[in-house]
Amino acid sequence: MSAYENLMAHARQTEALAQIAGRLGWDQQTMMPRGANAQRSEEMAALEDVLHARRTDPRLGAWLEQAEAPDEVGAANLRELRRDYARHTKVPARLASELARITPLAQTAWEDARLAGDVAAFLPWLKQMIALRREEGQAIAGGGDPYDALMEDYEPETSSDAVAATFARMRPRLVALREAILGADTPPALTGHFAQDGQMRISRRLAEHFGYDFARGRIDLAVHPFSSGSGDDVRITTRVAMEDPFNCFYSTIHEVGHAAYEQGVDPAHALTPIGRGVSMGVHESQSRIYENQLGRSRAFCGWLHGAMQQEFGPLSVADADAFYAAVNRVNTGYIRTEADEVQYNLHIMLRFDLERALIRGTLDAEDLEAAWNTRFEADFGYKVDKPANGVLQDVHWSVGLFGYFPTYALGNIYAGCLHKTLRADLPDLDAQLALGDTTAATNWLNSRLQQFGALRGPTQTISHACGFTPDEQPFMAYLEAKFTELYRL
Amino acid sequence: MSAYENLMAHARQTEALAQIAGRLGWDQQTMMPRGANAQRSEEMAALEDVLHARRTDPRLGAWLEQAEAPDEVGAANLRELRRDYARHTKVPARLASELARITPLAQTAWEDARLAGDVAAFLPWLKQMIALRREEGQAIAGGGDPYDALMEDYEPETSSDAVAATFARMRPRLVALREAILGADTPPALTGHFAQDGQMRISRRLAEHFGYDFARGRIDLAVHPFSSGSGDDVRITTRVAMEDPFNCFYSTIHEVGHAAYEQGVDPAHALTPIGRGVSMGVHESQSRIYENQLGRSRAFCGWLHGAMQQEFGPLSVADADAFYAAVNRVNTGYIRTEADEVQYNLHIMLRFDLERALIRGTLDAEDLEAAWNTRFEADFGYKVDKPANGVLQDVHWSVGLFGYFPTYALGNIYAGCLHKTLRADLPDLDAQLALGDTTAATNWLNSRLQQFGALRGPTQTISHACGFTPDEQPFMAYLEAKFTELYRL
Repeated sequence: MSAYENLMAHARQTEALAQIAGRLGWDQQTMMPRGANAQRSEEMAALEDVLHARRTDPRLGAWLEQAEAPDEVGAANLRELRRDYARHTKVPARLASELARITPLAQTAWEDARLAGDVAAFLPWLKQMIALRREEGQAIAGGGDPYDALMEDYEPETSSDAVAATFARMRPRLVALREAILGADTPPALTGHFAQDGQMRISRRLAEHFGYDFARGRIDLAVHPFSSGSGDDVRITTRVAMEDPFNCFYSTIHEVGHAAYEQGVDPAHALTPIGRGVSMGVHESQSRIYENQLGRSRAFCGWLHGAMQQEFGPLSVADADAFYAAVNRVNTGYIRTEADEVQYNLHIMLRFDLERALIRGTLDAEDLEAAWNTRFEADFGYKVDKPANGVLQDVHWSVGLFGYFPTYALGNIYAGCLHKTLRADLPDLDAQLALGDTTAATNWLNSRLQQFGALRGPTQTISHACGFTPDEQPFMAYLEAKFTELYRL
Repeated sequence: MSAYENLMAHARQTEALAQIAGRLGWDQQTMMPRGANAQRSEEMAALEDVLHARRTDPRLGAWLEQAEAPDEVGAANLRELRRDYARHTKVPARLASELARITPLAQTAWEDARLAGDVAAFLPWLKQMIALRREEGQAIAGGGDPYDALMEDYEPETSSDAVAATFARMRPRLVALREAILGADTPPALTGHFAQDGQMRISRRLAEHFGYDFARGRIDLAVHPFSSGSGDDVRITTRVAMEDPFNCFYSTIHEVGHAAYEQGVDPAHALTPIGRGVSMGVHESQSRIYENQLGRSRAFCGWLHGAMQQEFGPLSVADADAFYAAVNRVNTGYIRTEADEVQYNLHIMLRFDLERALIRGTLDAEDLEAAWNTRFEADFGYKVDKPANGVLQDVHWSVGLFGYFPTYALGNIYAGCLHKTLRADLPDLDAQLALGDTTAATNWLNSRLQQFGALRGPTQTISHACGFTPDEQPFMAYLEAKFTELYRL
């Protein structure tokens, strides 16, 4: 076998084992009996040891030196393999193992601190996590920026300077849009009690309408909605709140967007390094365009309004336009995961600036809460009332996820670019969406983007699909147009 | 670390990975989307490769040579580790990989042949499987008996000569008992339609009454009932047939027996070589005593009768004695898995004699169907009507399980021994069972047997629990007394 063939055979087994690890994660959040927790940790640690040994296998270094790509696909596979190997071998084993050891402890400390509203109790863990991740970022970056090195794990080929510049252009426009909306009349919310069975029936219909392949997946309930797996076994979860059916429905559509990307990659790439979504930002572009630009469009909301009336009888919001307004209602609030399309991005920018400063060492962990609260009031216009609604609201930092937050907003930006070209290519789209038919749109996304997996880098993936170099302009124009019209600004 | 400590640390990780493999098997039969089949095969193969490499790791040989057992537990762990290592290293890698390759193909060929009633179509696969497994048995046995070597994988420290002698003593008594029963009046069967929800509610009650710990397990539906996992994550499945609720209830109790053994091992042995059931025969003794000696007793049937009336209203069998007779009804039939307590063992003896002759080379695969049909008529009194009811009925041989069948009957024999002492120790047992209370019985089994896992070999495990060297006599006496009384023979 050639060095390339050796690499690919090795990578294929590693990826098969990684799929198993992912499926255990799904099991843990959906099926596992609660008493199995400690045993499961030990099982997962054993599997992670196997994966780590494979990913740092010294033979990989020799093969990577000799390997020649047979074609474009081979070149892409080598690009992914080289990056993975470099990342895994640059991080000292001691550091990786220390991170693995303290992560569950720090997460538990965060959970307790959030419940108790006690930022000080979480501070020692946060400091330790920042120090370890900074050290990891420095090890990967050599002399470069440690935050960029961490971010590139989720969004390769992207610099935080570029992200910061983009966010700086978006932020004043978002703050202004938010202020104008909250100064206008608020449309009525949908009220009522919606039974779990009915919500799940509509969830399944939504998943089918958005092209989710149930022969290669399934929907279950979990505390936090997620999508898990690649290729022929991609499972999603959703959640049900009796008073808030949109939470369930739009969580489902969001996760179907992630799942459609993984289910939609060309089967020829299955279990290879490019046989999955290329980055978190591009992944999020799929979940966001499914959820927002398609799912929260006026046309699709019309179909959903009918489906809900069919399932639940007359609704508190009887008129289709009012239903569309209720779906897209902008509220004051503190919590990122409950935010609307406009305010969501302000949440991200706040976290991006703070976590970048923490990793770079220009902000001390002691000063984080004050920095959060000051920035929140500047952007949102009111004060944080308690840490659970402020600096302690997200799990990310407690488990060491620094550099992950910006990918959510990059996903929105990418979705805006894709949506612009999609609309131009499909002039009849609204007529289809009004019938609940997303086939043309999801086929467009599959043929332009999803089928390629990680064949191209993130930015190239988007520009190949939309036909231009991505920037924030289409997304901002979409947001401003949608909400100016909705709120008659 | 000492050689013993190295061994145990290595074994612990291997066992954790083996638990993962087991859980994937559970997933495959309960949750996995059907389109994931091919990908799952590849994932499982990757994990099996990891396990095989660990089990034949050359360091094990050196550690095993040097290791000294610190105590009785250590000696038992070394005994298990030595046997595993010897088995795994004696089988040539080529043979193991050839077996892994043809097994799914042979199973598919068996499924097709059974549906078509075409024994000839399955013959080439059967021959190949016999040849490979015989070669494996010879490799393990050195100059010894290849069938014994295979059987010892499921039931260590047992010789097929001893099993054959036991079976030869039992067979005429079973044939005579069967003839007498079928010559007597047949009690009415329970008839009616029993909704799935109600059957599953009673299944869950039965599992609770038999001490299944739902905090460390769960019940789901599957085509074939099974129990899976050890320690803190032991899951069972059952099945529902609308016209035959006893199928569901006694499948549940049977699997709870297996699960109780795995859940009941002393947590100090978790993920160690002795932290699981010691053999298939001993495992089956637990499932059988839960299902039959306890679950099909007159006293417990009285409680079940009440529980069923509560759930389903009046039954076709209104009287408690008639209900007990319906539960224990002996029918003519062809299928092992549907057989009653009496005839089940005749099914096993037939298979044991035939498979032993196949592996030893004294019976040609071409002559198997004729040998099966002749023996069946001799023991059961009527002719096999079609291959699906005869030689093609069981999956075992198609997947290479030679030497497994006798463990089912050994389980019955062991259950008879345990039951004898259990009854002597618990004179009030029937009064408790009549209230649906199995606590004293299951606690007795846990304290005498389950908690020890594989601390002792199979026969010692049973004799330690029942206080005498096991033989078939208590089981035969139990059967003859029960059915003589039931059928007024």
